[in-house]
Amino acid sequence: MCRAAWRHVRSKMQQLEKIGKEPAEIVICGRSLDVFLNDIERFHGFLAPGLVLGGFMVDWAQQLIGPGVEADAVVETCHCLPDAVQIFTPCTIGNGWLKVLDWDKFALTLYDKAKLHGYRIWLDLKKTFLFPRIYNWYMRSIPKKHLPLETLLEEILRAQRSVFSVRAVQVATMVGRKKKRNIGICSICGEAYSNFQGKPCISCQGKGYLSTM
Amino acid sequence: MCRAAWRHVRSKMQQLEKIGKEPAEIVICGRSLDVFLNDIERFHGFLAPGLVLGGFMVDWAQQLIGPGVEADAVVETCHCLPDAVQIFTPCTIGNGWLKVLDWDKFALTLYDKAKLHGYRIWLDLKKTFLFPRIYNWYMRSIPKKHLPLETLLEEILRAQRSVFSVRAVQVATMVGRKKKRNIGICSICGEAYSNFQGKPCISCQGKGYLSTM
Repeated sequence: MCRAAWRHVRSKMQQLEKIGKEPAEIVICGRSLDVFLNDIERFHGFLAPGLVLGGFMVDWAQQLIGPGVEADAVVETCHCLPDAVQIFTPCTIGNGWLKVLDWDKFALTLYDKAKLHGYRIWLDLKKTFLFPRIYNWYMRSIPKKHLPLETLLEEILRAQRSVFSVRAVQVATMVGRKKKRNIGICSICGEAYSNFQGKPCISCQGKGYLSTM
Repeated sequence: MCRAAWRHVRSKMQQLEKIGKEPAEIVICGRSLDVFLNDIERFHGFLAPGLVLGGFMVDWAQQLIGPGVEADAVVETCHCLPDAVQIFTPCTIGNGWLKVLDWDKFALTLYDKAKLHGYRIWLDLKKTFLFPRIYNWYMRSIPKKHLPLETLLEEILRAQRSVFSVRAVQVATMVGRKKKRNIGICSICGEAYSNFQGKPCISCQGKGYLSTM
C-alpha cells in the first residue's frame, strides 16, 4: 500500500516539475504534498481523487475559519469526503464533531461550534469545465479506465482551490452535537438500546441486518 | 492532549502493577497498551472509555475472522464505536467499508466481504454486573463526575473481553457497499446531487441545514 503511494507521489512530483511548479511549494492542511498523500492512503486505504480534492477543501475552510476556533463539520456525501475531514481536522464520526448527510453533494461546511457560523465549500461544476478530467470523474461521464489516476491527480494538483466555490453560512442548531438518547433494555435480547426505536429493539422487530449461523 | 494521554497511560500502568498484571502483557489490535491508548487519543481527540472497550471488541473480532480476510464492518451506534473500527481496521466511513447504524447499541460486526459471514460482538449487560463501573457508565445510572476516567479505564482493562458476547452471523447484502447513485444537476443551485432526492435538490427544497450570511 505504502509503496503504491510513494510511486504516485514520485509520479506527481515529476508531473509538477513538468508544469514548472515545485511540489515543495504545495502545503495542504499544514502538510507537504508527500505527507498529505501518504496520510490519505494510510487512513483511507488508497489514494482516492475525492480525498485529494477534499483535502484542498478542508485546507481552504480552515484558513477562512482561522486558528484557535473549535470547528465542527458537516459533509454532504458519504463518499470519500468524510475521510478528508477525519484525517485533516479533529472531527470524526465517533466523537460527533462530524455529521454526514447522505445527499451525494460534494460539499462540506466547517463552522464555529459556539457561534454556528462558518463556511460551506463545494465542487463548482461551472469551474470544473476548465478541468475536464475532474468534471468527467465526478459526473462519471466516461469510464474509469479512461481516467488514469495519475492524470486525474495531476489535474487536481493543478486546479487546487480553483474548482470550488465558498459561501459564509449560518448553521441550524439541528446539526449540532446529537444528545445521547434514553437507554432502555430490550425485553427480548436483553441488550441496551435507545427507546426511540419502540419495543422491542429494531433487531428483535426483525429489521436487523443479519441472521445467526 | 498527548500529555494527558501519557498521564493516563502511566496511571493505568501503575494500576495494572497493583493488580499483579504487567501492562506489557496486554496487546490489543497488534499494539502495546501505550500505543493503543495513544492512537485512540490522537484520532478521537480524547481517551473515551467507549473506544477502549471498542478496541477490545475489534481485537476479538479480528482474531475470530482470522488473518488474510478482507473484512467489512457494521457498528450499531454513532457514539465512539465507529472510531474504534476506523482506527484499528482499514474500514472507514469514507471508503464505504464501515456502515454506521444509529441504534445506540454497543455492538459491532466484522464480516468477510465476499462470503458475508462474520462475528457480531456486543457489550453484554449481564456480564457487566461484575464490573459495576462499566455498567454505570454505559447505562448512565450515576453522574459522570462520580465515575473518574482512571478508575473506569482500570476496570475496562481488567474486564477486557469478559464483558462482551459474540455470535457467528450471516450479513444481509443490504449493508454491503452502497452503490453510487445517479448524479444529476440541480436546476436551481447548479450543483451535482443524486436524483433520489427529487427535483430540485434537498437544499433548494428548503430542507437544508444552513442559511447564507
